Amino acid sequence: MSPQIRVLVWNENVHERENPVVAKIYPAGIHSCIADALKSDDRLSVQTATLDQPEHGLTEHALEETDVLMWWGHAAHGEVGDEFVDRVLKRVWQGMGFVALHSSHYSKIFKRLMGTSCSLTWREAGEKERVWVCNPAHPIARGIDRYFEIENTEMYGEPFAIPAPDETVFISWFEGGDVFRSGCTWKRGNGKIFYFAPGHEVYPIYFNPKIQTVLRNAVRWAAPDPERWVDTCPQIPADRAPERLTVKGPRMHRKGEEGFK
Amino acid sequence: MSPQIRVLVWNENVHERENPVVAKIYPAGIHSCIADALKSDDRLSVQTATLDQPEHGLTEHALEETDVLMWWGHAAHGEVGDEFVDRVLKRVWQGMGFVALHSSHYSKIFKRLMGTSCSLTWREAGEKERVWVCNPAHPIARGIDRYFEIENTEMYGEPFAIPAPDETVFISWFEGGDVFRSGCTWKRGNGKIFYFAPGHEVYPIYFNPKIQTVLRNAVRWAAPDPERWVDTCPQIPADRAPERLTVKGPRMHRKGEEGFK
Amino acid sequence: MSPQIRVLVWNENVHERENPVVAKIYPAGIHSCIADALKSDDRLSVQTATLDQPEHGLTEHALEETDVLMWWGHAAHGEVGDEFVDRVLKRVWQGMGFVALHSSHYSKIFKRLMGTSCSLTWREAGEKERVWVCNPAHPIARGIDRYFEIENTEMYGEPFAIPAPDETVFISWFEGGDVFRSGCTWKRGNGKIFYFAPGHEVYPIYFNPKIQTVLRNAVRWAAPDPERWVDTCPQIPADRAPERLTVKGPRMHRKGEEGFK
Amino acid sequence: MSPQIRVLVWNENVHERENPVVAKIYPAGIHSCIADALKSDDRLSVQTATLDQPEHGLTEHALEETDVLMWWGHAAHGEVGDEFVDRVLKRVWQGMGFVALHSSHYSKIFKRLMGTSCSLTWREAGEKERVWVCNPAHPIARGIDRYFEIENTEMYGEPFAIPAPDETVFISWFEGGDVFRSGCTWKRGNGKIFYFAPGHEVYPIYFNPKIQTVLRNAVRWAAPDPERWVDTCPQIPADRAPERLTVKGPRMHRKGEEGFK
Repeated sequence: MSPQIRVLVWNENVHERENPVVAKIYPAGIHSCIADALKSDDRLSVQTATLDQPEHGLTEHALEETDVLMWWGHAAHGEVGDEFVDRVLKRVWQGMGFVALHSSHYSKIFKRLMGTSCSLTWREAGEKERVWVCNPAHPIARGIDRYFEIENTEMYGEPFAIPAPDETVFISWFEGGDVFRSGCTWKRGNGKIFYFAPGHEVYPIYFNPKIQTVLRNAVRWAAPDPERWVDTCPQIPADRAPERLTVKGPRMHRKGEEGFK
Repeated sequence: MSPQIRVLVWNENVHERENPVVAKIYPAGIHSCIADALKSDDRLSVQTATLDQPEHGLTEHALEETDVLMWWGHAAHGEVGDEFVDRVLKRVWQGMGFVALHSSHYSKIFKRLMGTSCSLTWREAGEKERVWVCNPAHPIARGIDRYFEIENTEMYGEPFAIPAPDETVFISWFEGGDVFRSGCTWKRGNGKIFYFAPGHEVYPIYFNPKIQTVLRNAVRWAAPDPERWVDTCPQIPADRAPERLTVKGPRMHRKGEEGFK
Repeated sequence: MSPQIRVLVWNENVHERENPVVAKIYPAGIHSCIADALKSDDRLSVQTATLDQPEHGLTEHALEETDVLMWWGHAAHGEVGDEFVDRVLKRVWQGMGFVALHSSHYSKIFKRLMGTSCSLTWREAGEKERVWVCNPAHPIARGIDRYFEIENTEMYGEPFAIPAPDETVFISWFEGGDVFRSGCTWKRGNGKIFYFAPGHEVYPIYFNPKIQTVLRNAVRWAAPDPERWVDTCPQIPADRAPERLTVKGPRMHRKGEEGFK
Repeated sequence: MSPQIRVLVWNENVHERENPVVAKIYPAGIHSCIADALKSDDRLSVQTATLDQPEHGLTEHALEETDVLMWWGHAAHGEVGDEFVDRVLKRVWQGMGFVALHSSHYSKIFKRLMGTSCSLTWREAGEKERVWVCNPAHPIARGIDRYFEIENTEMYGEPFAIPAPDETVFISWFEGGDVFRSGCTWKRGNGKIFYFAPGHEVYPIYFNPKIQTVLRNAVRWAAPDPERWVDTCPQIPADRAPERLTVKGPRMHRKGEEGFK
């Protein structure tokens, strides 16, 4: 049996407590609904974390035990502490997978990973969305036919200000006439990143079986190789150069000194 | 005659004032040396800015008048205010070119554009560097033969923790036995980005005619298209959808309201 | 005044002679319609060529005088001689731009440049297509607002079996419910490549002013840098190595000999 | 236990029979040496095939049973039948991994997958090569430290005329002063592709334990997802469109007809 993939589902968990429509759909929070969906795959070991926990539930220990971090944020992007953003970034660079859901396109972490504005257009009209598969054999599309539909959704539309994706897995068609790259992958350091657009909180989107299939696929796809690596500009002194080297000219740094940061 | 490209050469200008070796090589600052090199091309209109100026010389007005920003930083990355980092990022996304030099691989702006750690290895031994052209017809390599050499340089070596470049223009060979992707391009939003590794401040590298050729080429390559664009998630109300749309289901936002940020 | 860009518009010109519907729309051939559209930009110098000409009109002389080759083929992909395919490929690698239109996704040249199957799905129902701009400041989208519409079109749909584009400039929405990456860019060698999907021959699509705007933009975008380069594995003998080198061990090739091809 | 990966090691096997130096190093052929190296990993199931076999050993049955095809060719690229090139390409697009070794950068299959000239520079002087790891946690670099060395090698140098790699895993430093992107990855369709430069036949390079480690890593990395897909432009008739559609205007094709190819 292959080893389990350890997923941490993070949710700001704000609308579920403050908005009655959302509270009714997700009484235990979006994170619980998603965690339940993931648990149906017994290769996945699932934990959850929320904004209001100490360190937002993103302790060094929790991240050390995480292979893939799934992120849902919307109203409270600004309340995520920069220290924890940096902590997560470092883990992604080492190899931890990162799955950003819906409004998390505007989360601090996703924007930091992309290096672009991550702007898009949006419309809240409960319209129909049809999610098309752009590569039928992509691991994230396994179990999905040519497309699937979401009866009521928020429209997210182009232009989507992202760097060119490594792969565009899904593109959505909207009843109102728009299109959107709704499933895209990138790599930053050794971390695999997947953005998946559907998930507006006033509709029961995370109960949709096809959405749940994609989430499970995404976690398995984003799972890291066992080897991890991140570095902070090590000095390699001249006497450890592969070729014999005579030091010439002046220097800024002493041997063993750290570089500027 | 084609319109001029407006370059702003930014330098932290710290070592030139604090380190006698650097002060002797660049008595007027690295920025002045680079600006002089660029001015020899009369299609370029050149300004300079330094850390100690008000707003680090990066006023909205200065950036409005800038097509390409060239950046040199090393000891004082941390002193660049986050407000100005955000301001520059927005300009890059709109289309302003950004050329990061040498130790600027670790500048806040470059790291934010890349989304990776930007770590590398380094060695200060005054060794020889041979910069190889990976694509002889690339605009940034124009006027350079198969390679050029720098007699005394700081080694920057792999692994270089960057996202896969759109194009690797130069790879360097070092006397001590290392290699480095020393000239790489990316695009973020509409901004073209070029990283160029040579430039250690204790050697007179920016006086090297080949280096100067590359800097001029890089500015011309990074110059933006006249059209600029950046956006902040506009709401497109249902009555402005291209297809006729009947609003269904509940909503989180009122018409005309801004999204969460 | 900047120098003119020399465009060669190539068309197989088969349907225009054999199918009365197409003949009525394009009595002088699709190539003539496109050429007229390009000529309205006086920075473009426009020639045409067709399959039935000697060497398909793709003589070495004609290609030597071409900065950007625009290609329309459909029924006669197989009749394009491999010798001319290789000739065009070599020009693209040197720097000649290549714009593939509509059914040319299945042309020999485009498939050779992509390295994938270039399959897509299609439906001929005269439905409406809405072409969305994914990056409003991209040079190929200049003069286009958020989107434009084509009243009657052939549907080209996902999955589109292409390598991940360098940039996705347009994505199309179809009345019948499909989506398609209808405007994509790549680079092969120094040649810039743009694929643009609209253009089914039984509708007057190349008379659409927005389509014509995109074609003119595409030519200007794909125009090469003056410097060209292509190579065929030159041997660099040991006595021309940058570092002094003593030849060791056995050899397969004599000095000056060509490699295997 | 995870299922075995089925590797087919293909070799033109020409020099081993015609050149006494090569015959002495690889009396049973390069393919046998490589196959032995792969067999030391019991997760790999290894077969070999050579040019002189019926269908070059690339029968439909053999490819159906292959997860990863490893390729070594040099003197006889032109003798590989186009029919078998097309057959292999289709398998790669479906998902079969492809590992191109050394002089196979100029094989028909690799050039077809890349879409570029695949030119490089070369020098046969028995010089030292140092292979640097550009990403220490990349699966293909597992078990390799910062670098490894090959005492006698043929130099392959930049410019290497390839499309920008998805990832540059290795860059080589040469005693004679050159550099080369010696380990690169791409994806075409669902096939993962790895090019690995070392392997000149007059030196015993495939006996080098580090080289063997990389080959085993490469096979495991290139192994496909179980799902395969390739398509040939299916027509989706109007009555199977996801949205109700009334056919308008003229048509080129009848319902059920195949497109032009």
